[in-house]
Amino acid sequence: MILQLRQNISHEEATTLAVANQAAFFQENGAYIFVLSSSVKAVPAALEAYTDKSWVTDSDIQLASKQYRNEVREVKWGKTIVGGNTGNTVMIAGPCSVESEAQLELTASLLKELNINNMRAGAFKPRTSPYTFQGLGIDGLKLLAKMREKYGFSIVTEVRDATNVEAIIEYADIIQIGAKSMYDHGILKRCGKTDKPILLKRGFGATLQEFVQCAEFVLSGGNPNVMLCERGIRTFETKTRFTLDLCGVSYLKEYTNLPLILDPSHAMGYAYGVADLSRACVAMGIDGLLVEVHPEPKKALSDASQQLTYDQFRNLMQTLQPIANAVGRQMV
Amino acid sequence: MILQLRQNISHEEATTLAVANQAAFFQENGAYIFVLSSSVKAVPAALEAYTDKSWVTDSDIQLASKQYRNEVREVKWGKTIVGGNTGNTVMIAGPCSVESEAQLELTASLLKELNINNMRAGAFKPRTSPYTFQGLGIDGLKLLAKMREKYGFSIVTEVRDATNVEAIIEYADIIQIGAKSMYDHGILKRCGKTDKPILLKRGFGATLQEFVQCAEFVLSGGNPNVMLCERGIRTFETKTRFTLDLCGVSYLKEYTNLPLILDPSHAMGYAYGVADLSRACVAMGIDGLLVEVHPEPKKALSDASQQLTYDQFRNLMQTLQPIANAVGRQMV
Amino acid sequence: MILQLRQNISHEEATTLAVANQAAFFQENGAYIFVLSSSVKAVPAALEAYTDKSWVTDSDIQLASKQYRNEVREVKWGKTIVGGNTGNTVMIAGPCSVESEAQLELTASLLKELNINNMRAGAFKPRTSPYTFQGLGIDGLKLLAKMREKYGFSIVTEVRDATNVEAIIEYADIIQIGAKSMYDHGILKRCGKTDKPILLKRGFGATLQEFVQCAEFVLSGGNPNVMLCERGIRTFETKTRFTLDLCGVSYLKEYTNLPLILDPSHAMGYAYGVADLSRACVAMGIDGLLVEVHPEPKKALSDASQQLTYDQFRNLMQTLQPIANAVGRQMV
Amino acid sequence: MILQLRQNISHEEATTLAVANQAAFFQENGAYIFVLSSSVKAVPAALEAYTDKSWVTDSDIQLASKQYRNEVREVKWGKTIVGGNTGNTVMIAGPCSVESEAQLELTASLLKELNINNMRAGAFKPRTSPYTFQGLGIDGLKLLAKMREKYGFSIVTEVRDATNVEAIIEYADIIQIGAKSMYDHGILKRCGKTDKPILLKRGFGATLQEFVQCAEFVLSGGNPNVMLCERGIRTFETKTRFTLDLCGVSYLKEYTNLPLILDPSHAMGYAYGVADLSRACVAMGIDGLLVEVHPEPKKALSDASQQLTYDQFRNLMQTLQPIANAVGRQMV
Repeated sequence: MILQLRQNISHEEATTLAVANQAAFFQENGAYIFVLSSSVKAVPAALEAYTDKSWVTDSDIQLASKQYRNEVREVKWGKTIVGGNTGNTVMIAGPCSVESEAQLELTASLLKELNINNMRAGAFKPRTSPYTFQGLGIDGLKLLAKMREKYGFSIVTEVRDATNVEAIIEYADIIQIGAKSMYDHGILKRCGKTDKPILLKRGFGATLQEFVQCAEFVLSGGNPNVMLCERGIRTFETKTRFTLDLCGVSYLKEYTNLPLILDPSHAMGYAYGVADLSRACVAMGIDGLLVEVHPEPKKALSDASQQLTYDQFRNLMQTLQPIANAVGRQMV
Repeated sequence: MILQLRQNISHEEATTLAVANQAAFFQENGAYIFVLSSSVKAVPAALEAYTDKSWVTDSDIQLASKQYRNEVREVKWGKTIVGGNTGNTVMIAGPCSVESEAQLELTASLLKELNINNMRAGAFKPRTSPYTFQGLGIDGLKLLAKMREKYGFSIVTEVRDATNVEAIIEYADIIQIGAKSMYDHGILKRCGKTDKPILLKRGFGATLQEFVQCAEFVLSGGNPNVMLCERGIRTFETKTRFTLDLCGVSYLKEYTNLPLILDPSHAMGYAYGVADLSRACVAMGIDGLLVEVHPEPKKALSDASQQLTYDQFRNLMQTLQPIANAVGRQMV
Repeated sequence: MILQLRQNISHEEATTLAVANQAAFFQENGAYIFVLSSSVKAVPAALEAYTDKSWVTDSDIQLASKQYRNEVREVKWGKTIVGGNTGNTVMIAGPCSVESEAQLELTASLLKELNINNMRAGAFKPRTSPYTFQGLGIDGLKLLAKMREKYGFSIVTEVRDATNVEAIIEYADIIQIGAKSMYDHGILKRCGKTDKPILLKRGFGATLQEFVQCAEFVLSGGNPNVMLCERGIRTFETKTRFTLDLCGVSYLKEYTNLPLILDPSHAMGYAYGVADLSRACVAMGIDGLLVEVHPEPKKALSDASQQLTYDQFRNLMQTLQPIANAVGRQMV
Repeated sequence: MILQLRQNISHEEATTLAVANQAAFFQENGAYIFVLSSSVKAVPAALEAYTDKSWVTDSDIQLASKQYRNEVREVKWGKTIVGGNTGNTVMIAGPCSVESEAQLELTASLLKELNINNMRAGAFKPRTSPYTFQGLGIDGLKLLAKMREKYGFSIVTEVRDATNVEAIIEYADIIQIGAKSMYDHGILKRCGKTDKPILLKRGFGATLQEFVQCAEFVLSGGNPNVMLCERGIRTFETKTRFTLDLCGVSYLKEYTNLPLILDPSHAMGYAYGVADLSRACVAMGIDGLLVEVHPEPKKALSDASQQLTYDQFRNLMQTLQPIANAVGRQMV
């Protein structure tokens, strides 16, 4: 159950009340928001005098639910806004990993050419083998920051584990929490204490319920700027790398208030399907796309098979705007 | 390996050669087509003198492969053509089950209003419990035939098991093989002996490889008119009934020559997601959609939660044409 | 809901009552058993006067439930009894497919040596490719029958689809319904009309609920002799062929009254794991094992990688008896 | 590829060589071990002069493979040894979470009664909802340490994320890496720098390949004491919490050299199946079991449904020894 307390309550008072009532709490627009277990269905007597408004929720999907807020949250960064009444579908593009400054310069020129404001690339790679390329680390982050300064891009990059969350928060405009880190309390709790937008990827073995509950860790920490990213779940089918769960996207659209960013590249794992899947995603009326593109995919140090060439990506971009229009939206 | 024999070979000769070489075979455009195991990579010496053309394939996806035919097969029935150069995306709509003549009349008037030529409804229902509605059986087929005669619709209905395959072949224009029957040799082999179009649904636990290999049973029986239907696979996610595998659809588009018909209703299991998913499917440039619509979904005898109301369906139809256009196709 | 009617009711009366109340029904020990939907929770007024005993069930797992019968059903054939108070764990062994009489003679001598009374082998193989060995068909059944006559084995063999169910019922002592045919109404309904034991394999994409409900088709047809066979489900893990679901076996033991026969060979797909898994199964206190063994596994026409050699099988047999004893049972 | 360098190489020299050849490296028994990518199949020319022995591996399962060491590694702690020639199957038992000192005292008396030397309990709980009990944290660790001092138990407890790995390494005898943290590089790399035994749980969405490769992060960091824990994978079946993958356990036994500890409690999710599954695990000849037991399961603050009562646990213990004996092992 969610309670919005009256405006004039002090931090000390709020803290005391929260501890006594086992509530997560944070401040929003001058009022304290308390979140109790979803099994609580009525305002507790001890909190009645302090409560302005309240919302009952079905499950521990609380702050993220349509029962709490009946519209998609507006999230802003750099030149970009998604959610709310914007009808925006944002394109976020770039290589899987930062490999070199030259590579990022080539990426920058492609994005500039296509009026794309958001650059993605990984610096700390959560590889499954210790004997493969692990990313450039801090040096990679610095190269990304250079692109922001030089060209005005917003930077989306991934935190790998709690040991590098501070560095990512410092360098990124959007903090991406990867699929393998979705459950990481160290990251989630820290991200609740920044106000930078969080792009939370769904663990490939995670249920929708768990996925949104992980977003609740960030939201209940006080950061309202969370976006959900479906990137494919693991199923018995192995002809493709993962299975993009668009039924799940329908569920998230229906029941949550968080912007939805889709990642067809990781789901598919092969460049040949990325364009069709991107078009399918846009036709669903979602808030953004994350697409991998590389100047020379065959030479990429990670995810070589799934990154688009520049020409494939240019062709894709041409077809997305009319589909967005057909569902009353626009690509940004 | 596939061989196309020379034109002047007799049926007796072909039969003798096929048995001697363990080949499946059938006649097409006056020539016998032999299909050997895909592990055979060169024309066997004993067949060299008889062979006109040959194709090597990677796996036992042979007649269905792009390696054999590099374009989508054209399949025709009633007023409809899909595949080939048509750019057509066909809508096939109707209730889950035939329940009464009145219900089918209401369906007919909706389809007429929206210029839809293909009606779907089940007469033999492959229910998972013996204690629920099992369909009207032959009486249901007769009601469907009546709709065809009265209004000119083509009828799509499902064979449940090999005991009713003759009845379905007699009454239907398109024989639908259901997800639970996908592996049924009795059905598949019988369907290879008709020339009516076959709509083969993917088993929800079937790999893409198995799915297309089941189509090979029909194709190698001599029926070239097979269409594949992705309708959701079973995964760990249970908020939705199944998980529509659009990554798999990308695979099928890339590697097979069979028209693709998608069924978002069974995948989702809930009406709220069907419209978005239908739009996503059309944006992928597929050949057709199978959508469940019912005059009063809440009173439906099966699949009550996933069938669209008439108004939901009308709204959906309005948005599909512009998306089809955006990907260079048209709804029919 | 299950009702046991009073003894003196005629077949005509029972039929009339069943139709009027939408009940499945059959006769057992002189009394008619009616099965209504599980949503019915009280004896309907119209049936009160006829009802002797009644059972309410949670779901459409009814005749198979512990709520109906609180002990494991006893099933008998040939020299074998399982279930009830027997504490028997039966070994059923043999090759994947019947390949030749010589192969079956070798199998027979191994089984004789080890005092095994039940021989398994497939005659109609539900292969996923049309371009591979499909089994010897009727000739295979005849060879199996010969082994029964010559050596006294009971024969377990699989029905592939409804077109060969009559032949299997004629030749087999236990009718095995394969994983790919689990949902086949044509087979299930026909098997309800014989009294030979049915070994129903779980579809690899089937939930436990669906699995047991398929058994209900047979049970409610009047055949009480159904045994369930877990043989591995399809998961994301592909290092092994399937994933043997022993958690599911725990569920079936707790909630159903049907004997449980486990098939570690198909689950594992590789001979190296079959012995350990067989021991695990026996330690769970189950009613039987189905193990594939072949005189020369490498030359097998199907499932070559998973069949045990004779020496591997002899070693396995030696270790099973002490484990069975440790859980209060004996191998038969 | 794995290389064992000659004995007299200095740390400086080893470091220089490792960097130049992109090798992970550590020292073992006085010699440096270098691990190159598994795609390297011959000793690189630049390292030939320094190399004593070498091993080629099929995949990036290298240090953990039977190709490198053909027997199960011996791992020791407190009074316990597993692996090697011991034939030991260790029981590790205790509640899901540390809840209070009184609860741990009750646990201690049960373990003492049954001669169990290893106590498990969680202090930092990786819950999926922020609105439920999150564990006692450091206070929980201190209570566990108290049990060790008072009674001589070894303590097994879980690191939740990289922010508490130091605390766990300080307080625990065996560092458990939970299923949700399996991919956590921050944890894995830190655990490579301790020599305390690591119990690595398989992520419920992780393939066996990924699972063992995560162990490689610890092993290649220089800690040879890694044990693998299968605890159930997520499948489509939801009657049970997860699906214990014993086929996967067969794979791990066949191809890896790491001791295997199984956790039937989390796999099953319900107390009723835990005893049967524990017996199945022991019959497979594994190295240990992790079982949840609670003085009053119904009042447990986490995992209430799956913890055994004391009487259930006592009964289980009585049956495990004979099964262990039947497979040539003993419970410790």
